[in-house]
Amino acid sequence: MTRPLPSNQTLPADALSYQEVRALTEALAAPLTAEDQTIQSMPDVSPTKWHRAHTTWFFETFVLEPHLAGYEPYDPAYRYLFNSYYNAVGDRHPRNQRGLLSRPGVTEVASYRRYVDEAMSRLLATDEVQPLISLGLHHEQQHQELLLMDIKHVLAQNPLAPAAFPIAPPRAVTAASGASQWLPHDGGIVSIGAQGDDFCFDNESPRHALLLRPFDIATRVVSCAEWIEFMDDGGYRRPELWMSDGFATATSEGWRAPLYWEQIEGEWTIFTLSGRRPITGNDPVCHVSWYEADAYARWARCRLPTEAEWEVSAPDPGEERHAVHPDNVAPNRDWYGAVWQWTGSPYVAYPGYKATTGAIGEYNGKFMVNQMTLRGSACVTPPGHARRTYRNFFPPAARWAFSGVRLCRDVN
Amino acid sequence: MTRPLPSNQTLPADALSYQEVRALTEALAAPLTAEDQTIQSMPDVSPTKWHRAHTTWFFETFVLEPHLAGYEPYDPAYRYLFNSYYNAVGDRHPRNQRGLLSRPGVTEVASYRRYVDEAMSRLLATDEVQPLISLGLHHEQQHQELLLMDIKHVLAQNPLAPAAFPIAPPRAVTAASGASQWLPHDGGIVSIGAQGDDFCFDNESPRHALLLRPFDIATRVVSCAEWIEFMDDGGYRRPELWMSDGFATATSEGWRAPLYWEQIEGEWTIFTLSGRRPITGNDPVCHVSWYEADAYARWARCRLPTEAEWEVSAPDPGEERHAVHPDNVAPNRDWYGAVWQWTGSPYVAYPGYKATTGAIGEYNGKFMVNQMTLRGSACVTPPGHARRTYRNFFPPAARWAFSGVRLCRDVN
Amino acid sequence: MTRPLPSNQTLPADALSYQEVRALTEALAAPLTAEDQTIQSMPDVSPTKWHRAHTTWFFETFVLEPHLAGYEPYDPAYRYLFNSYYNAVGDRHPRNQRGLLSRPGVTEVASYRRYVDEAMSRLLATDEVQPLISLGLHHEQQHQELLLMDIKHVLAQNPLAPAAFPIAPPRAVTAASGASQWLPHDGGIVSIGAQGDDFCFDNESPRHALLLRPFDIATRVVSCAEWIEFMDDGGYRRPELWMSDGFATATSEGWRAPLYWEQIEGEWTIFTLSGRRPITGNDPVCHVSWYEADAYARWARCRLPTEAEWEVSAPDPGEERHAVHPDNVAPNRDWYGAVWQWTGSPYVAYPGYKATTGAIGEYNGKFMVNQMTLRGSACVTPPGHARRTYRNFFPPAARWAFSGVRLCRDVN
Amino acid sequence: MTRPLPSNQTLPADALSYQEVRALTEALAAPLTAEDQTIQSMPDVSPTKWHRAHTTWFFETFVLEPHLAGYEPYDPAYRYLFNSYYNAVGDRHPRNQRGLLSRPGVTEVASYRRYVDEAMSRLLATDEVQPLISLGLHHEQQHQELLLMDIKHVLAQNPLAPAAFPIAPPRAVTAASGASQWLPHDGGIVSIGAQGDDFCFDNESPRHALLLRPFDIATRVVSCAEWIEFMDDGGYRRPELWMSDGFATATSEGWRAPLYWEQIEGEWTIFTLSGRRPITGNDPVCHVSWYEADAYARWARCRLPTEAEWEVSAPDPGEERHAVHPDNVAPNRDWYGAVWQWTGSPYVAYPGYKATTGAIGEYNGKFMVNQMTLRGSACVTPPGHARRTYRNFFPPAARWAFSGVRLCRDVN
Repeated sequence: MTRPLPSNQTLPADALSYQEVRALTEALAAPLTAEDQTIQSMPDVSPTKWHRAHTTWFFETFVLEPHLAGYEPYDPAYRYLFNSYYNAVGDRHPRNQRGLLSRPGVTEVASYRRYVDEAMSRLLATDEVQPLISLGLHHEQQHQELLLMDIKHVLAQNPLAPAAFPIAPPRAVTAASGASQWLPHDGGIVSIGAQGDDFCFDNESPRHALLLRPFDIATRVVSCAEWIEFMDDGGYRRPELWMSDGFATATSEGWRAPLYWEQIEGEWTIFTLSGRRPITGNDPVCHVSWYEADAYARWARCRLPTEAEWEVSAPDPGEERHAVHPDNVAPNRDWYGAVWQWTGSPYVAYPGYKATTGAIGEYNGKFMVNQMTLRGSACVTPPGHARRTYRNFFPPAARWAFSGVRLCRDVN
Repeated sequence: MTRPLPSNQTLPADALSYQEVRALTEALAAPLTAEDQTIQSMPDVSPTKWHRAHTTWFFETFVLEPHLAGYEPYDPAYRYLFNSYYNAVGDRHPRNQRGLLSRPGVTEVASYRRYVDEAMSRLLATDEVQPLISLGLHHEQQHQELLLMDIKHVLAQNPLAPAAFPIAPPRAVTAASGASQWLPHDGGIVSIGAQGDDFCFDNESPRHALLLRPFDIATRVVSCAEWIEFMDDGGYRRPELWMSDGFATATSEGWRAPLYWEQIEGEWTIFTLSGRRPITGNDPVCHVSWYEADAYARWARCRLPTEAEWEVSAPDPGEERHAVHPDNVAPNRDWYGAVWQWTGSPYVAYPGYKATTGAIGEYNGKFMVNQMTLRGSACVTPPGHARRTYRNFFPPAARWAFSGVRLCRDVN
Repeated sequence: MTRPLPSNQTLPADALSYQEVRALTEALAAPLTAEDQTIQSMPDVSPTKWHRAHTTWFFETFVLEPHLAGYEPYDPAYRYLFNSYYNAVGDRHPRNQRGLLSRPGVTEVASYRRYVDEAMSRLLATDEVQPLISLGLHHEQQHQELLLMDIKHVLAQNPLAPAAFPIAPPRAVTAASGASQWLPHDGGIVSIGAQGDDFCFDNESPRHALLLRPFDIATRVVSCAEWIEFMDDGGYRRPELWMSDGFATATSEGWRAPLYWEQIEGEWTIFTLSGRRPITGNDPVCHVSWYEADAYARWARCRLPTEAEWEVSAPDPGEERHAVHPDNVAPNRDWYGAVWQWTGSPYVAYPGYKATTGAIGEYNGKFMVNQMTLRGSACVTPPGHARRTYRNFFPPAARWAFSGVRLCRDVN
Repeated sequence: MTRPLPSNQTLPADALSYQEVRALTEALAAPLTAEDQTIQSMPDVSPTKWHRAHTTWFFETFVLEPHLAGYEPYDPAYRYLFNSYYNAVGDRHPRNQRGLLSRPGVTEVASYRRYVDEAMSRLLATDEVQPLISLGLHHEQQHQELLLMDIKHVLAQNPLAPAAFPIAPPRAVTAASGASQWLPHDGGIVSIGAQGDDFCFDNESPRHALLLRPFDIATRVVSCAEWIEFMDDGGYRRPELWMSDGFATATSEGWRAPLYWEQIEGEWTIFTLSGRRPITGNDPVCHVSWYEADAYARWARCRLPTEAEWEVSAPDPGEERHAVHPDNVAPNRDWYGAVWQWTGSPYVAYPGYKATTGAIGEYNGKFMVNQMTLRGSACVTPPGHARRTYRNFFPPAARWAFSGVRLCRDVN
């Protein structure tokens, strides 16, 4: 598990720098060729240059057009080409056809970014659009992670197994080393969700109380070595461990191991952003679907934590490395920055949730069905983007996110 | 909305009569021809004769084979043909190919039923299998409702619009008449789920406490007249009212009205088990998917209730007709017996849920993903089958269940 | 290879008896249950009761309505339900949804047939409609064969392997016994196609001349024993023997043997209309696609004959059993009545072809693309239906026809 | 209709220059960006850089590896990546996934081409490989045309309608100007197919005799103005004009005009390699499928010519501009260089056809089913590639080739 992002990023979560966020997107794309940036390897994946353009479109559409007097769009056709899913701002190019567009090319997209950045520089002094800019930056951070997820999927289709980021430091996240322990929690009435002045997405609010039963949650995420035990014990072939939909998917898709795993001459390897390499047993298992996570938990005679159980147990991102648990359990340092952790909670609105008004209200609310939530953050999550209340979500069959497993259990 | 079931059934929920339940299945199938009973009109639908055989297989497999000494199966091949989804008892005929089997025919299936009933009659004295028999009877009741859902779908494919149950009394459920009012609830810590000695499915347990915010819930379900207002207001064409997956489904499927509705010379009609007929505005809207129910609620500036909100507001089935609300609101008599009511709750395990051990444990637990819960019961639910704690569930796109809408709202 | 048809049929090809042809259809359906007659096991298959109704619709639509004064249709809805593909007579029920219709049932269809037969009996004296009646009878004979092809496919889906025609005499067609020999032909200008007063379909005309090179054609069709040699020699796994489309189809469909073959405990068996039974090596191979026939021929270092080569080599049906070849080669008696024989000729119009005018013109002409022709007839072809000029046709991947292989080779 | 190829090419058909053919491929790709060259817009389309690499692989695999001592492949992985369909030389990357490969990129592909060209330059003196080199050059010419067909399809997906070849001279092919006349032919025994020492593909041989009936063939191809008459007369909505498969395809695909046509504010436009522009009525209609060509011919009360009729009527490519017909009819100059012309002949082997032995034998023979032949050549066919005996072929639904229509009729 390596972190392909520059390590000298030190952005505070509540005050992202426009220049730094925008520059990081370009830095991530820099090692990629024009050909790399063009391909859409499955409907869920977007080409790199589309990510670069769409995040720019977001600022153009929601900030510059309504708020910068006299602003002329870079190209009126981009309103259609780079809209992702906002019905309120008109029609859009079909999502599954993003890989059919060779033009604008990477050079033109870079020019588009500079044009919008220049216009934004004239706007930044204004205070009233600050919330929209902040949303735009957090949005761009999400796409930085998507860009890395997506390009990994693109490159993995190539039998040459190209190493797109060959100089990325192979700094192992030590997350899964050491025996896992249980962090106990007594349950009772707790509160979760975001509150206060710091940035959050609308789906994290309102902060609200709920009632928990006592539970134990694992001090670290599941490792590759543990996953291999599951595989060796017939994990992928035993329907009694799986949800019915999950086993049907695993069967029809031929799943035998996590995505990107391949057994070569008896040894398991994984495809990474730096090419294919042998598995390290201590690494957190990654690129497993919710179906697999759920089956693994059942095999381990545990279950996945709920969102609330996770949130009341996790440290804040900034405190992770210093956390000491009252019961003297040393929680591992993998709540954030290693792998997203599937929860047992379907992605639904919090009680009292109100979507933001206007087109921006389409950001989160309309996806609150058919998905499961994940918590924490991953090695590809940009610095400063993680929050304890952050709610990530994917369909239960999705595997191309950097998703792993933290176990939980009832206390009887 | 008519109730095609015999009205003189008075089975208590906790002591279903084997003879009466089994006889009702045959009574429901009696008006159907051999051809009617053979067809599978979509993968989710099963032929009538399959329902008749599968419910019999359930008693043969889980009661007679393990518990009646010397029992000889009617036909060993049926173990494969009529297994629905129990991996623990072996392979099975593919679900989507149930309509490819002409043999055994309806006469042979009747013979199979009599054979098993006779064997069961020799077993009934024994007490220790009573829970399995009880489960088998509640299972058969579920299939009685499925049988009616499924044959309605089969017959609806036919341009002749055949009336399978021509003598069913057109007794209108008066559910949706009168203005809807709001039943207030103060929230706080409440308990839901089943407890005690009466029969329940494992997914209704354990009874557990949770914390609710104050809310209002409607005294009656949404009517066809109200649904037509939604349609006339562009409800099916306005993406801002829908979940993203919902609008995509509505578009690709060409939804413009609930299932079985058809506009003929300007007037809306519905296909019923007694043929096609004009819509009655006061009837509860039925055969809408969760996607549609959710969009309707958003259009009405309300939301769907959670399972807990529904359960703490509803009367017990036996008390419905006499219920008087403390605040002097007269709740309508449509919590049960009209339409199942979609909730905003995804179908997941209750805290502390344990699936039954053995093959029977596959009954409920393995379906707890990708589905939404419904509460109450419908006009096709057998007498004695409804419970306040009962959890029905279907995928959010399903429309062939007798599903409708009860609204809820936050109290600010 | 058995002939499930009554053997006492002695209809001359040019004067089919209305009563006898119509009665044979009912005789073929008689052993089938109502459930058997309802199922459509794939889009190409039609339910038995649909065949019975559609052939009746043909007489009603093309003979009675235009030619019997005062005729009242049995049910106006049948015009839509039982139209197969005639655009000129209006819309029709989708072909792939014929298996979704339980009504009218088998009893009602029998009543429909009697109603039309009674009306036809009032019309028969009239001479001017004789060509249409003749076409209707040959059309019904085609559907008699389709009915048997289709019900075989339906029953083959059933793990119980039901024997629909248990009393059919297992009279083996001795076609493939004995060593195959070569019938030589010198080539030159020859004529093929139908001419004169006897009935023929429009696709058999006009009779026309063409130029042939010398060739040899086999005295008998390929046997099951020979096919097993091909299989044992890797025939289904060697792409160099196949057309590219053929190998792709064989791979994606998992073909390893002809349709209906199954290896049970090391022995090859076939499913027949009388149930499953061991293969007889001397039987003609049957239920192979054109792709397989073509690959077999290449494997045998031969090729398939063209239509013209077949037609100038074959005896007339009535002469088959007495034929003596000038070169003293005894041609086998399997040109007709065993299996249809794939040719190397795509199904196209003969030079100078004119489709019949009116709706009847849709009978043949609009299918003259994407299909390969077959010649001869099969054990399920009704008596009196075969002709030397007869052109049967199916897509190259079709296997459910009673189709086999006769080899041919160039003479150098 | 413009010819995007350099007009100063003067290669004789029988002695293509290696350097010139190879250089033309690179010249065609030169105006395209790296992004353009990467995209596969449908399974039938290959990315530009794949064409450039595959044609190089052909020389490497079939010429250099067996015939240049000590030759080291540029990259052993390319054997897998750039094999198109030759089973005899091993596995290959799936055809429909060619657009998922970003690496090797366009620069690397150029390097691969130079590497192979350099090796070829060391081999050219050798005489014995001349036939293979010749085949390789004709193969590369075919891919030059495919490259242009494919990139046109790629760019047409883009709402920006990019003009890839903006400087291409808009030289209109004057083919369809003037009234069409009929060229009569008396029929009789004629010979078609290639013979002699000039290069031809194996599917053009052997030359053989056949018997023709008298016929008339049109002096020019069908124009856009004529096609618009067909459209305005309901051509795309009248099933009686179409093959059954054709009308089903036209309906399901929503065909209303030829591919690349779009009606903008009432005027028909076409997308070309130089962008979108208004239709010129005199231009030959192009990008129609065989199904459309066949329907058009039926509408015009004509038919498509057979291969033989076309071949005995057409001039040789070099003679086209000087041809004078004996009956003093001035045949138009559009037999070649405008549009390929669909014939009524399915693509099958000529009598006596023998595929070349070895891997090269897979070049043509295994595609001889499910396709229709076209004759002539198109504006995108490289100079020197056309022959009177040339047999092009595509499935009847294909529209992305530069395919048009020449009519024919029977003489009564």
